[in-house]
Amino acid sequence: MKYTLQQISNYINGEIEGDAQVEISNIANIKEAKTGDISFLSNPKYTPFIYKTKASAVIVNKDFKPEKPVKTNLIKVDDAYKAFSILLEAISPKIEKNGIEEFAVIHPTAKIGKDVYIGSFAYIGENVVIGDGTKIFPHSYIGDATEIGKETNIFSNVSIYHQCIIGNHVTIHSGTVIGADGFGFAPNNGDSFQKVPQVGNVIIEDYVEIGANSSIDRATLSSTIIRRGVKLDNFIQVAHNVEIGENTVIAAHTGISGSTKIGSNCMIGGQVGMAGHIKIGNNVRVGAQSGIINDVPDNEILIGSPALPYRNFKKSSILFKNLEDLYKRIIELEKNSQTNKND
Amino acid sequence: MKYTLQQISNYINGEIEGDAQVEISNIANIKEAKTGDISFLSNPKYTPFIYKTKASAVIVNKDFKPEKPVKTNLIKVDDAYKAFSILLEAISPKIEKNGIEEFAVIHPTAKIGKDVYIGSFAYIGENVVIGDGTKIFPHSYIGDATEIGKETNIFSNVSIYHQCIIGNHVTIHSGTVIGADGFGFAPNNGDSFQKVPQVGNVIIEDYVEIGANSSIDRATLSSTIIRRGVKLDNFIQVAHNVEIGENTVIAAHTGISGSTKIGSNCMIGGQVGMAGHIKIGNNVRVGAQSGIINDVPDNEILIGSPALPYRNFKKSSILFKNLEDLYKRIIELEKNSQTNKND
Amino acid sequence: MKYTLQQISNYINGEIEGDAQVEISNIANIKEAKTGDISFLSNPKYTPFIYKTKASAVIVNKDFKPEKPVKTNLIKVDDAYKAFSILLEAISPKIEKNGIEEFAVIHPTAKIGKDVYIGSFAYIGENVVIGDGTKIFPHSYIGDATEIGKETNIFSNVSIYHQCIIGNHVTIHSGTVIGADGFGFAPNNGDSFQKVPQVGNVIIEDYVEIGANSSIDRATLSSTIIRRGVKLDNFIQVAHNVEIGENTVIAAHTGISGSTKIGSNCMIGGQVGMAGHIKIGNNVRVGAQSGIINDVPDNEILIGSPALPYRNFKKSSILFKNLEDLYKRIIELEKNSQTNKND
Repeated sequence: MKYTLQQISNYINGEIEGDAQVEISNIANIKEAKTGDISFLSNPKYTPFIYKTKASAVIVNKDFKPEKPVKTNLIKVDDAYKAFSILLEAISPKIEKNGIEEFAVIHPTAKIGKDVYIGSFAYIGENVVIGDGTKIFPHSYIGDATEIGKETNIFSNVSIYHQCIIGNHVTIHSGTVIGADGFGFAPNNGDSFQKVPQVGNVIIEDYVEIGANSSIDRATLSSTIIRRGVKLDNFIQVAHNVEIGENTVIAAHTGISGSTKIGSNCMIGGQVGMAGHIKIGNNVRVGAQSGIINDVPDNEILIGSPALPYRNFKKSSILFKNLEDLYKRIIELEKNSQTNKND
Repeated sequence: MKYTLQQISNYINGEIEGDAQVEISNIANIKEAKTGDISFLSNPKYTPFIYKTKASAVIVNKDFKPEKPVKTNLIKVDDAYKAFSILLEAISPKIEKNGIEEFAVIHPTAKIGKDVYIGSFAYIGENVVIGDGTKIFPHSYIGDATEIGKETNIFSNVSIYHQCIIGNHVTIHSGTVIGADGFGFAPNNGDSFQKVPQVGNVIIEDYVEIGANSSIDRATLSSTIIRRGVKLDNFIQVAHNVEIGENTVIAAHTGISGSTKIGSNCMIGGQVGMAGHIKIGNNVRVGAQSGIINDVPDNEILIGSPALPYRNFKKSSILFKNLEDLYKRIIELEKNSQTNKND
Repeated sequence: MKYTLQQISNYINGEIEGDAQVEISNIANIKEAKTGDISFLSNPKYTPFIYKTKASAVIVNKDFKPEKPVKTNLIKVDDAYKAFSILLEAISPKIEKNGIEEFAVIHPTAKIGKDVYIGSFAYIGENVVIGDGTKIFPHSYIGDATEIGKETNIFSNVSIYHQCIIGNHVTIHSGTVIGADGFGFAPNNGDSFQKVPQVGNVIIEDYVEIGANSSIDRATLSSTIIRRGVKLDNFIQVAHNVEIGENTVIAAHTGISGSTKIGSNCMIGGQVGMAGHIKIGNNVRVGAQSGIINDVPDNEILIGSPALPYRNFKKSSILFKNLEDLYKRIIELEKNSQTNKND
């Protein structure tokens, strides 16, 4: 690519401070950028770098007020991270895979849409439906009667069991497993267990993205449901009959136990655990490594294991650090109390 | 299906309260059930739904005593969850895969039993043995000299390394890895590491079920052993030389470090971590997110990181929430103590 | 194998105490060893077994001083664990796979070195480079333009996305995913998200070993980097733009958030979480299940969530156990204080 700063600014609806004619040929992060690169500043942690970056221009938030002279050119926008994302989208290469490669197995009853890519060693089972423009990479397994929508990307080594429903514009990364049996066993007399058959399925709505090596179990009855726009990171465990509301975002290694319902627009940190059969409201935020064992109302911010509202946890956590001090002060008080008594 | 309630009750050894002739055509959960459905009530959290369910019948525990009038018909049994499981088993479709699909690779030295299913792209190595009625789904890899028993299901994209032993009636879900090298490195002079070869194997006994994307490492010497009837959820890490006793159940994201031995009939929550070289007794229960660093005697109930007996943890945990209050009371006491001194 | 103890001692640079002519035919661990076996003692937890082992010889550290008579023969070395590892290496079978198996797909533009093994159902994309002596096991996927060095082992069902760089003498176990998209989404007006394209890659340097079912995400821009000699266990989450320094070792289920830099020679326990955009120094040790939220200086030892220096954590942790006692003592003091006031 090669554009003037003016052209870029127009594309992302920005306002230039500096030389509109400077030439931009690449995108780079603010620490590593060189002449000819454009970068962005969004996380305040990186503010010091704007005073020394070699980038020819930096995209910043409208409210950015430099505390020292800035040598680089600026484009001011409403949301620098989003503008950067739009720019990156414009220049990033599209996946151009197309057609059916050798050694793909497609059951004769499967219905395959237009402009579909099916890689070598992909396995498309009986009565599977695959929508237009969808890409199934090598080594992925699509079980019998599963339906996949349009413009969806299933990367390599994904396993989708039978009778699941995957929407449009969905992305599923490598190693992820959709529709394995939920973890249900009824104790027998004695010590062994009777497997509870898992006869439900998984429904994944449109615009969902699921990272690598995650696992969404099928429901015992009815469906495990991932609503529109949900973003799951890597290693997410979604147990049977869970439902995750629209646009909720969950970071890596988090596990959600059976039948729990999460609302929409939640942000859940990494390594969080949630008990089964609970209800998390909308717009809830949960700090990393928290353990949620009870229902959570809308708009709550939680952290800790077991989780507390953020304000309480932070205080208790600081005091935990100082427990030794507390302890010493009690000993001191006990001495004084003794002295007083003896007075 | 279409049965009278009487027929169903006979099948699960129950006692009817209500209309024995009502017709049942489906199974559903108590919240979503419609006329013609049978449901069950086991978790007390769902008791309120029995008063408003539209199910034509509900299976309940013998000791269930309604607090309000119940409109639906009841089948009373010893264990409602188990009876429901038996019913589900009766109506759930069996996997009917059979025979060897195109593009399966089977080494000429492998011994394949009767009525075996080997899916496309399955890879069966040198001297592998596969028992009667076993199913190997597409994309699964069975390394050289590994032996798999009878009536075992290996779902898609499973990797089993060489020389492992898998029993009868075992189920292994997609993405799981059996027999990768244990994590052993001896420090060299300087800072680098020398890999410790892992020349042992993994033994999985009969009736074990392992969820999706789990990992059981091979032993350095001898065997990592999963005993009869063990149930492992998704993302379970079992390090080299671990042994897990009969009928122990472990929830998702739990990790067990090298050479640790777990007894039989334990129930281990999700996201639990166990140190290496420790011994967990029989009938031990461990709460989610616990960290176990020492040996645990039989019948113990533990929670927390580091783990405490449940009773102690709960008390300390409540007091942790109130640390601020404790702190204020100490400040108050110090003031008083000062006042007293100055008296 | 069949060697005299003298031959073995010479090979590992040891000093014999006992019968140099005793015949050794196998290696076993100290608890299970039989006549004819050689074993080793390194972890002091296993010291009691040296007095009752049936092993014909045991390798011990030079400074081992028996407290009771030892019946077995000893080889004394500088580092028993390392000597054992060298011995194991000498006798452990090498992987002898070679050549290209049927049903492997290799793009005509790919460059394949000498003495390479490419298993059935391996997929080698456009412009891929594979160095001499490298082994790609069945079902592994190597995306377009990815380069793999010499003498590297990629086990079955591994997915490596496009444009990544893997060094020499690297080992990657089954189910691991290299180069999936980093987890980056910019909020739109309203509640939905705009995906931030991930156009960087992953670089893995020489002598790295990565366990089963781990995941190293590609960078948004530039590279996620795993430096020479790093050892990662199973289920490790490495987010976009992370860098891990030379010879750092990380145990299972640990997750590292985006843009965090870890120094060299660190030892990180299992189930640890690290926040994004932080810097961990060199020679840092982190206890299992810790949560690191701030920068960490060189040589620090940390534990807890949020993490504290080890000494402080241990004290606070003991006091946490005794919170109930603290609480009772405060109540007692309050009573006394009241009494004193009333005096």
